Amino acid sequence: MSPWTLLSLVLCLEPHFLIGDNRWTCLQGKRGVWIKLPIELVTLVEPAVKEGFYYHHAEPKYLMLVNWLPGTANTIPANATHRVGIGAFVINERNEVLVVQEKSGRFRGTGVWKFPTGVVDEGEDICDAAVREVKEETGVNAKFIEILAFRQSHKSFFDKSDLFFVCMLQPLSFDIHKQDAEIEAAQWMPFEQYAAQPFVHGHELLRYISDICSAKMEGRYTGFSSVPTVTSFSQKNTYLYMNGNVRTNSRDDPC
Amino acid sequence: MSPWTLLSLVLCLEPHFLIGDNRWTCLQGKRGVWIKLPIELVTLVEPAVKEGFYYHHAEPKYLMLVNWLPGTANTIPANATHRVGIGAFVINERNEVLVVQEKSGRFRGTGVWKFPTGVVDEGEDICDAAVREVKEETGVNAKFIEILAFRQSHKSFFDKSDLFFVCMLQPLSFDIHKQDAEIEAAQWMPFEQYAAQPFVHGHELLRYISDICSAKMEGRYTGFSSVPTVTSFSQKNTYLYMNGNVRTNSRDDPC
Repeated sequence: MSPWTLLSLVLCLEPHFLIGDNRWTCLQGKRGVWIKLPIELVTLVEPAVKEGFYYHHAEPKYLMLVNWLPGTANTIPANATHRVGIGAFVINERNEVLVVQEKSGRFRGTGVWKFPTGVVDEGEDICDAAVREVKEETGVNAKFIEILAFRQSHKSFFDKSDLFFVCMLQPLSFDIHKQDAEIEAAQWMPFEQYAAQPFVHGHELLRYISDICSAKMEGRYTGFSSVPTVTSFSQKNTYLYMNGNVRTNSRDDPC
Repeated sequence: MSPWTLLSLVLCLEPHFLIGDNRWTCLQGKRGVWIKLPIELVTLVEPAVKEGFYYHHAEPKYLMLVNWLPGTANTIPANATHRVGIGAFVINERNEVLVVQEKSGRFRGTGVWKFPTGVVDEGEDICDAAVREVKEETGVNAKFIEILAFRQSHKSFFDKSDLFFVCMLQPLSFDIHKQDAEIEAAQWMPFEQYAAQPFVHGHELLRYISDICSAKMEGRYTGFSSVPTVTSFSQKNTYLYMNGNVRTNSRDDPC
């Protein structure tokens, strides 16, 4: 079967669209045509592009193409724009903070002690990601308390934006079993010693975060706690992150 | 020029990689091979996939493919995972909130009055997006004050996750000039009237948000304000969102 025959077959499965004058035309008010091609049908990518389709997004196993029909305003929704990461501020009752040295990346060999950090997995809640990363990197069990602050930056990874959430966690265990693959060293360190590192003190963003953590330790700061709720429309369970000092009329069971 | 010749040409531009035994092999410790193909080179997609490459991500004008070399742990970073949206709580000195009725989507024809909402554009700051959406939908000029709360949900658009930030804004103008394309109606409405709508009162998430806005109006709530700062590493300007009640030792000029 030729690529063109296969492509026609794929599109004919959607009865709203017809091929006419070498263009896709449209019935019943549809304004855009989507083609989701599993990677096994890679043969169809070239004929689709030659027919005027362009890429919308791709995941390892498929490519999504779209063709907006001429003559109407293009309302095709944007692709995902952000990657989400966490940094974990884990502080024990002796005001010692859990810190690590990384084996690779920009901090390799610098002697810098930093919070455990990581990327939020696809479909993962931010509060769960913080607990998971701390456990993975250091072996310490911890409970999510609050998001203390977050930073948005742009043109980061593959030109996408980045949201980085600083999470406070309460340790539930204290013995450190570091992950060998990524972590050179891990320890509990007096918070003042962490904050006094030139690497922290000399960088504006890290100094802000250090000041916020310090204020939190002294009871002068309230971040956003996680409140499980249900979205209005899809009935999916979801977390709302809000200032935990305010009790609302709804239920309030933090993560 | 055949697709195979073209693909070889693309890869030969990167001197670290050689073709041997019909596999890409690797010199100098590289563990993965990336191919970024502009849509004009769509001819090369099929031969790349047949050579073992798979899709990583795509934007309208290019497709990124990747091939992880066998025998080492795959550390290929994930694609962008989140779309980011905002809802704007714009309240005037008479405790009237700016609300709209939408022309399309699930609220069409329902009579529901809601906050202006929208998607954060690629590369846009959350605080700027809130100001822009309010202006676009209602013609009202407003100043960003705080992020009051945010919600993370999953399996939303194209199976990606979604972060929705509730932003408080102070109006700088009051005359409404609604956008005709998306907005059926827009008005200033007493906050109590907004909150009493069955649509708001009957949905857990919206009731939380309404309670938070109410607490904010009564001075019982502090969200995260935007503090311009510089990232430690790239020297890019970026916003840190934090509880504005705490003054840090760094500069503090809100957005």
